[in-house]
Amino acid sequence: MAIFDIVVANGTVLTMNQENAVINKGYLGIVGDSISQIGPLSEGVPDAKMAIDAKGGLILPGLINGHTHAAMTLFRGLADDLPLMEWLNNYIFPVESKMDGDFVYRGTMLACAEMILSGTTTFCDMYLFEDEVARAAKDAGMRSIVGEVLYDFDSPNYGSLENGFKYTETLIKKWASDPLISIAVEPHALFTCSPDLLQRADALAKKYQVPLIIHLAETLNEIEEVKNRYGVSPVDHLISLGLAGPHLIADHCVHLDDREIALLAGHGVKAVHMPESNMKLASGVSPVPKLLDAEMTVGIGTDGCASNNNLDLFTEMDMAAKLHKLDNMDPTVLDAPTVLKMATIESARALDLDTITGSLEPGKKADVIILDTDKPHLTPMYNPFSHVVYAARGNDVSHSIIHGRLVMEDRRLLTLDLQEVMEKAQEKSREVMDWIAK
Amino acid sequence: MAIFDIVVANGTVLTMNQENAVINKGYLGIVGDSISQIGPLSEGVPDAKMAIDAKGGLILPGLINGHTHAAMTLFRGLADDLPLMEWLNNYIFPVESKMDGDFVYRGTMLACAEMILSGTTTFCDMYLFEDEVARAAKDAGMRSIVGEVLYDFDSPNYGSLENGFKYTETLIKKWASDPLISIAVEPHALFTCSPDLLQRADALAKKYQVPLIIHLAETLNEIEEVKNRYGVSPVDHLISLGLAGPHLIADHCVHLDDREIALLAGHGVKAVHMPESNMKLASGVSPVPKLLDAEMTVGIGTDGCASNNNLDLFTEMDMAAKLHKLDNMDPTVLDAPTVLKMATIESARALDLDTITGSLEPGKKADVIILDTDKPHLTPMYNPFSHVVYAARGNDVSHSIIHGRLVMEDRRLLTLDLQEVMEKAQEKSREVMDWIAK
Repeated sequence: MAIFDIVVANGTVLTMNQENAVINKGYLGIVGDSISQIGPLSEGVPDAKMAIDAKGGLILPGLINGHTHAAMTLFRGLADDLPLMEWLNNYIFPVESKMDGDFVYRGTMLACAEMILSGTTTFCDMYLFEDEVARAAKDAGMRSIVGEVLYDFDSPNYGSLENGFKYTETLIKKWASDPLISIAVEPHALFTCSPDLLQRADALAKKYQVPLIIHLAETLNEIEEVKNRYGVSPVDHLISLGLAGPHLIADHCVHLDDREIALLAGHGVKAVHMPESNMKLASGVSPVPKLLDAEMTVGIGTDGCASNNNLDLFTEMDMAAKLHKLDNMDPTVLDAPTVLKMATIESARALDLDTITGSLEPGKKADVIILDTDKPHLTPMYNPFSHVVYAARGNDVSHSIIHGRLVMEDRRLLTLDLQEVMEKAQEKSREVMDWIAK
Repeated sequence: MAIFDIVVANGTVLTMNQENAVINKGYLGIVGDSISQIGPLSEGVPDAKMAIDAKGGLILPGLINGHTHAAMTLFRGLADDLPLMEWLNNYIFPVESKMDGDFVYRGTMLACAEMILSGTTTFCDMYLFEDEVARAAKDAGMRSIVGEVLYDFDSPNYGSLENGFKYTETLIKKWASDPLISIAVEPHALFTCSPDLLQRADALAKKYQVPLIIHLAETLNEIEEVKNRYGVSPVDHLISLGLAGPHLIADHCVHLDDREIALLAGHGVKAVHMPESNMKLASGVSPVPKLLDAEMTVGIGTDGCASNNNLDLFTEMDMAAKLHKLDNMDPTVLDAPTVLKMATIESARALDLDTITGSLEPGKKADVIILDTDKPHLTPMYNPFSHVVYAARGNDVSHSIIHGRLVMEDRRLLTLDLQEVMEKAQEKSREVMDWIAK
């Protein structure tokens, strides 16, 4: 009788556990939705209902995209290289005002296809029509945290803010027992949300013990606007409203001084870093090495496809590692193992999912990817961490397992009809062109 | 009777010509080694001995890697995240002292495989045993400019400098009439080459009318060392020695002030930009927008795999576009078409190959790639330039034609035995590990 439901064998296992253990010629055995055993492959491949040969490649925890707006795949390349306000006012806001739930579902399915194909197994989303995002993630077999964006103006989804709170509460209840989907409360930012909104959002998050997620200190404009309106910096404003705490995930964290970093760290706030978006929008550089020195948890994310323009966490890692070396004029900053942790166990910790995913350890859910290293750009391999961060690309991932389910085999997606997903995306893009033309 | 030897049809042609013309549903006809016709596909695919279906993807000029050290693929990931001198003294210099011609040939073959697979059709190399680099490029069917590195110390290849000049002159004569390979004179840098060496190198380049290529103003250490030794900045030193001119290609150009930029531009010096290497080694940011404003020709390169660690010009473009937006805190800087020009026609111009390659125009040599866009991360497509720079990756390239010869078909390499290339690379990596261990 087979011991395991699935065994992934014959690869170098990067566990990303506390000791950062690496097992050469190892295997990983899965029972049901969970990792059961990991070890060296001493006496042949253990018995399993399904055996997957890693062919000497790398066996890694699935990558975790700490912050994105998945459905914005449908806006990728619609408008680039523009001043922020022109981009928002002439392109993004007009098209978002026309969107509906089906648009978001289709855009998210497209994003899920791209994410699975590039090794991501979990993503955290902030957008509109998030029940459709949850449905798409579920259909694609991806783990995700989703939250409806809340702000002071009316939403194309829920209308007035009052309905936004109701919508969020309904989401929380609807998905409460789902093994893959969980919900967060997600006020947009300090300059788009009144103090009252923020405190109600915080209360709602605390009531249901779900994360509170917000964009924080992303741009200099935001800093100025918050200071003009409230007389204090975003971090001080956040703290004065009682929002800072271990339940808070602060996305971006670009413009922070040392005092503010100490305050956020002291309150146990977690950060998610989006280097490509911060570069493309010319927002600035998050002081990630200082956040890490202050012992803050820092995950990594891609942001949406309108400001990146891809969901590939491998290039995000590469960019992060290189950006902070440059920013500190020090080539030892953010070494490869540190950056891979940010995209796996630290992203999981930021999202409060670290007991579930983010590393390969018995008892955790089986979120596992295989990186095919039998390629010229990954040959020879002196150091697997270096290759993952500086040389590999999303499309080097050959297999993906999420929650014990094989969702990609030899780059073939098993949970969705890729042709249909792309055709529907094309249809939606024609609608977008019509909206823009008007 | 067929009009063309090869026709590439049914794709969007990005010509990268002077007008930056884009032809939707176009074709490109090749006769012999050259482009014969380009046009819209009005009445079916023209007659050809070989018809290649671009399947609605993008038809582009092959990318041009303006500066690399190809054989350093064999050192990729050997040592990262280290201070520069520790990296050089403990890893790179010791292994380079043990290298031989076969090592360089094998490393360059590996590099050619990676470059063809990621859409590069031409590269400019600076390293040791460059006759072997030329031989590898020729075997792989790639266009290249190669030059033996010259410096004040003995070389593992040619021994004393005197032999270095002889070796270079022999290279120039040997490859003079080759359709794919050309030779440059390549003194390493101003702090590793005496004024006498530099002037002799310059004279040699001028005698044979070949490019003179040098690393310039790459690091702050270099600036300091040149100032200490000669009392002037690298640019002033270069000019005082009479090296500045349209035959000079200056790699990196990181630490330049406005006066120096004006001087280089005034002398017609060309630049090659390596953003990923400059970031990873924490060298600094080249003032590329200012170089372009001064009407300097600026190409793009990857540098070697020990400081990048990949040869993918697609991610290099992405990084360049994002880095300069951040560095200038302006999202309109280095837009996608500008960056794609840098990796095609401007790199060609920098290398003095712009009458031969770098754009799709009748009469030019047929260096052509197809980008397969039938993928979720490239669907839908509002703007092909945006997708090429911000979303595509090297492994989205499906076909490559160099000098009229199909070298990659549906990602299968036709000019080299990939399995053998990777096996030989593995063998060489075991030698490297032995060298390091001693």
